Amino acid sequence: MKISFIGAGNVAWHLSQALENENHPIIEVYSKNLENATLLANKLFRCKAKDDLDFSDSKAEIFFLCVSDDAMEEVVSKVKLPKNAILVHTSGSKTLADLDEYTEAFMNRPPKTGVFYPLQTFSKSVKLAFSDIPICLETNDEEVENILIVLAQDISEITYAVTSEERKSLHIAAVFACNFTNHLWGIAQSYLKEHELDFHLLEPLIRETLRKAMNAESIFDVQTGPAKRNDKKILANQFLKLKDKPEEQFIYRILTEAILKKANHPITAE
Amino acid sequence: MKISFIGAGNVAWHLSQALENENHPIIEVYSKNLENATLLANKLFRCKAKDDLDFSDSKAEIFFLCVSDDAMEEVVSKVKLPKNAILVHTSGSKTLADLDEYTEAFMNRPPKTGVFYPLQTFSKSVKLAFSDIPICLETNDEEVENILIVLAQDISEITYAVTSEERKSLHIAAVFACNFTNHLWGIAQSYLKEHELDFHLLEPLIRETLRKAMNAESIFDVQTGPAKRNDKKILANQFLKLKDKPEEQFIYRILTEAILKKANHPITAE
Repeated sequence: MKISFIGAGNVAWHLSQALENENHPIIEVYSKNLENATLLANKLFRCKAKDDLDFSDSKAEIFFLCVSDDAMEEVVSKVKLPKNAILVHTSGSKTLADLDEYTEAFMNRPPKTGVFYPLQTFSKSVKLAFSDIPICLETNDEEVENILIVLAQDISEITYAVTSEERKSLHIAAVFACNFTNHLWGIAQSYLKEHELDFHLLEPLIRETLRKAMNAESIFDVQTGPAKRNDKKILANQFLKLKDKPEEQFIYRILTEAILKKANHPITAE
Repeated sequence: MKISFIGAGNVAWHLSQALENENHPIIEVYSKNLENATLLANKLFRCKAKDDLDFSDSKAEIFFLCVSDDAMEEVVSKVKLPKNAILVHTSGSKTLADLDEYTEAFMNRPPKTGVFYPLQTFSKSVKLAFSDIPICLETNDEEVENILIVLAQDISEITYAVTSEERKSLHIAAVFACNFTNHLWGIAQSYLKEHELDFHLLEPLIRETLRKAMNAESIFDVQTGPAKRNDKKILANQFLKLKDKPEEQFIYRILTEAILKKANHPITAE
């Protein structure tokens, strides 16, 4: 199965190398910036870098569309694919229907389509073991389905059929579970810095909290801390200590009230 | 160094066994509930369970006070310690001055005191490697300091001198970094459950987010997601998707606005 990548960002960077490691040759990498395409192509065996979207003479059978959500429509409007090519995107937010809409709007012979979404955050500088990364697949075509399953199972042990609607739910959950928690860790780190304390002191506690959460039937049941215990004295003291940091104090209040409510404790004014 | 434990809860459970493993004999365990004291004493070598607070004939040199913050004053008012005993508490919230206040109020010969605070959450059923757990020490007495350092270093590789004020800062940071994040994971899990999706799908993503945070000079700099990218379309869609869950929607809005603000994006009404 010969593969080409449209896009040379973080997802393309990791996914192309993972697929090639499993003996799926990557023959072309496109980026509008030829330098970026070349950087990735140089990591791959006999891969051509290009900055034009004319793939009409390409020998690739499957094209991975790894561009930002905002760029997807424009790229599809310009790309020229060979006959019988398969086009899959790797976005967590775009639906399969979005891709079909674009290909039908701009192509005389719309290709077969699919979604190949690795549920992970990527940075070029960090090597990740793909085997742990859940791959979420979606397509309306049986041939494409069989191909995507083979590719996904070659690089990952966790492969799911996930509809576009389900992918949206996963994305919302990920915003709570990752993006929002990252912001809270940021608050904790910067608060500790101000008091000349090292955020790494909290690492064992965070890891144990995560371990408990991962093993919990209901994560709300393993909640700990002053709000869960309804320890009003500590809550009032901590709220007061944040008085010079109104934004952090507000978040403290909102999340404390949410935990109190979930634990059926009364919420009293502070 | 002979040790006795006042209290047989989660902290006493783990700490006593860790100390005994390093050849510090635990000779007595007190709990107001003799059954609880016996459960722990049976885990230890030649340890006596008791439900009275008269230790005046005890051979122990150091007493670990592992009772809840609320019970501390009452227990100190009733306990009888042998001459020259050292009394240390293991609380994250109580100060050293609190303990000194209680001992001075209730004892003719107040003992030397200290704080020995393992920065971790404990459950009796889960074995933890103490070597990774930061131990925060505080005392105003040099002899006690030397003893606590030896005990702490015997069981853990991470030992810090931390004042009561610093311990309070650590506690506030831990509320943000652990208690609040646990609640967000709970929201993510319950949202996924409603859509018949498994929270474990997010585990690699959460672990990678944590890994990045732990390596970041500033955690705000490694923030990802639609708010950080100022992707108003996704933000509006996700906000709308939460319309039947006003509490989750409110938290979504508050934390999204916090991330937008930190990233210097304008906050527009949704």
